[in-house]
Amino acid sequence: MGLNENVAKPLDRLAGMLAPDMEAVNALIRTRMASRHAPRIPEVTAHLIEAGGKRVRPLLTVAAARMLGYGGTHHQLLAATVEFIHTATLLHDDVVDESRQRRGRPTANLLWDNKSSVLVGDYLFARSFQLMTETGHMQVLRILADAAATIAEGEVLQLTAAQDLATTEAVYLQIVRGKTAALFSAACEVGAEIAGGTAVQVRALHDYGDAIGIAFQIVDDILDYCGVSETIGKNVGDDFRERKLTLPVITAIAAADGAERAFWQRTIEQGDQRDGDLDRALSILARHDALGSARRSALGWADRARAALGPLPQGPIRDCLSELAGFVVARVA
Amino acid sequence: MGLNENVAKPLDRLAGMLAPDMEAVNALIRTRMASRHAPRIPEVTAHLIEAGGKRVRPLLTVAAARMLGYGGTHHQLLAATVEFIHTATLLHDDVVDESRQRRGRPTANLLWDNKSSVLVGDYLFARSFQLMTETGHMQVLRILADAAATIAEGEVLQLTAAQDLATTEAVYLQIVRGKTAALFSAACEVGAEIAGGTAVQVRALHDYGDAIGIAFQIVDDILDYCGVSETIGKNVGDDFRERKLTLPVITAIAAADGAERAFWQRTIEQGDQRDGDLDRALSILARHDALGSARRSALGWADRARAALGPLPQGPIRDCLSELAGFVVARVA
Repeated sequence: MGLNENVAKPLDRLAGMLAPDMEAVNALIRTRMASRHAPRIPEVTAHLIEAGGKRVRPLLTVAAARMLGYGGTHHQLLAATVEFIHTATLLHDDVVDESRQRRGRPTANLLWDNKSSVLVGDYLFARSFQLMTETGHMQVLRILADAAATIAEGEVLQLTAAQDLATTEAVYLQIVRGKTAALFSAACEVGAEIAGGTAVQVRALHDYGDAIGIAFQIVDDILDYCGVSETIGKNVGDDFRERKLTLPVITAIAAADGAERAFWQRTIEQGDQRDGDLDRALSILARHDALGSARRSALGWADRARAALGPLPQGPIRDCLSELAGFVVARVA
Repeated sequence: MGLNENVAKPLDRLAGMLAPDMEAVNALIRTRMASRHAPRIPEVTAHLIEAGGKRVRPLLTVAAARMLGYGGTHHQLLAATVEFIHTATLLHDDVVDESRQRRGRPTANLLWDNKSSVLVGDYLFARSFQLMTETGHMQVLRILADAAATIAEGEVLQLTAAQDLATTEAVYLQIVRGKTAALFSAACEVGAEIAGGTAVQVRALHDYGDAIGIAFQIVDDILDYCGVSETIGKNVGDDFRERKLTLPVITAIAAADGAERAFWQRTIEQGDQRDGDLDRALSILARHDALGSARRSALGWADRARAALGPLPQGPIRDCLSELAGFVVARVA
């Protein structure tokens, strides 16, 4: 994520407010990613986990629990769980996408190999389930198991929807819920559950995470067409080259004339991409204001995230979460 | 697995005794491997799950529970869980090993692609955790989460130990516990747990599964050097070509003279394999009776499996499990 000083503030403030919790979470992550027998595991994991991710998801878990007055330590186990699931999906995603760069660094599949990424991802999934069972709280296990299934289903859906020009905004939303929003909403929801929140509070935090996750992913998909490679930590145009049907392209295809449709068929459906095609794609997106339309959609989801916070206790954590919704879309605002 | 009429009897008898349970398990597997959104998932899963596997692991779960007098239906959920975990590991294994054949049929990574195998495997892992949470039984969740971690750790260990001539029998045993015995022992143990077995009974079933799993894997490793391709459902010599340090090779390396050591260094360590090398490997294994030694080791684990059954209630299920220990090693006896 590319953050400027200004917009980073809510996330940093949240991390500052929850610093003792987050230190405990980081200690848990370091301890539990170890393997007595297979040193390859912490090598691969450390490469990703210590690559300067913002720990957004575990922060959400810890924030949700503390906002509802939780005084125990099980929210830390759940925050580490959520980060492990996230890291496992990143490892597998990079294999599936044949990615070479993540957060501005070479990917694990490039530094080691696909095999290590697949198996270490599996190990982290298993570790995440071990961590959550330590809470002894059956409902949080259900929420996280459901999230894991939604994530995998979304990834498969993305795989089969890729290159299919008939992909609708509804299918896109389902893919996004899988690949991003499911873990954001589960991260918030388990924080509320472990704190013994009311059904209304649990639902509110679920909805907040869902909306902020969708906003986050739409922004990511926009930046793939207009960001700066150094800032977004990957190469501009990756989604185009990988022939992914993201919201900007879906919008442009829906409004395409005959020549444009032929262009998308050749570049996305048939994968026949030539020099200058990315520029052509960008000019078509501009002609239909497809990035602007996606931006408005992201801002709408940020609004929904803020609105979802209504039933939750007022205070500095809620204020931060509300600002975070703005922060997520600030990269394209 | 290649079974002749005679040795298949205990497994078939067990399946016959537990037929109503196994029908329910199979129905669960079919229902739960579905995905509303991503039809690729049941396609890939069905290819593997319906490929005529013997359902050994779910049979063990159901047998363990019924032997201890369980009258509920949660053991069926756990049996389906165990089969899902097994299928997920097969999908990922075939990607990691770049396998082209499994149970005599082309592998999913060959029929579809590596991406589908990775993601559908992840989906099945997640589904397995959903299934087990439906039991509401925290201890079985812990056992299965631990097993999943041991499996992944064993796979990573195998990856890094591969091609390393210094691999000892102890490391081999740890890899085998991971790749095979952990799920066999967990399958038995959760059956005992869900039935409310005593600590002694739970331990006995764990030990039985562990021993039978190790015997099973050693036999598999022996057959890779002396089986018949049609019967073992893969190609003889695959492990040699993949440069795996299995028990027969570890035994032969420990006893190797200078020329033999150079041979293993070239073929396994450096991966420089030429025409006639598999025959040379077989003659070196024969010279040190390495397959015979592995066979004796497998028979020893089968004995341990039978002995572990001591504290369990006598009856037809226990008799079948005892015979099953003999069946597992009958392929090399």
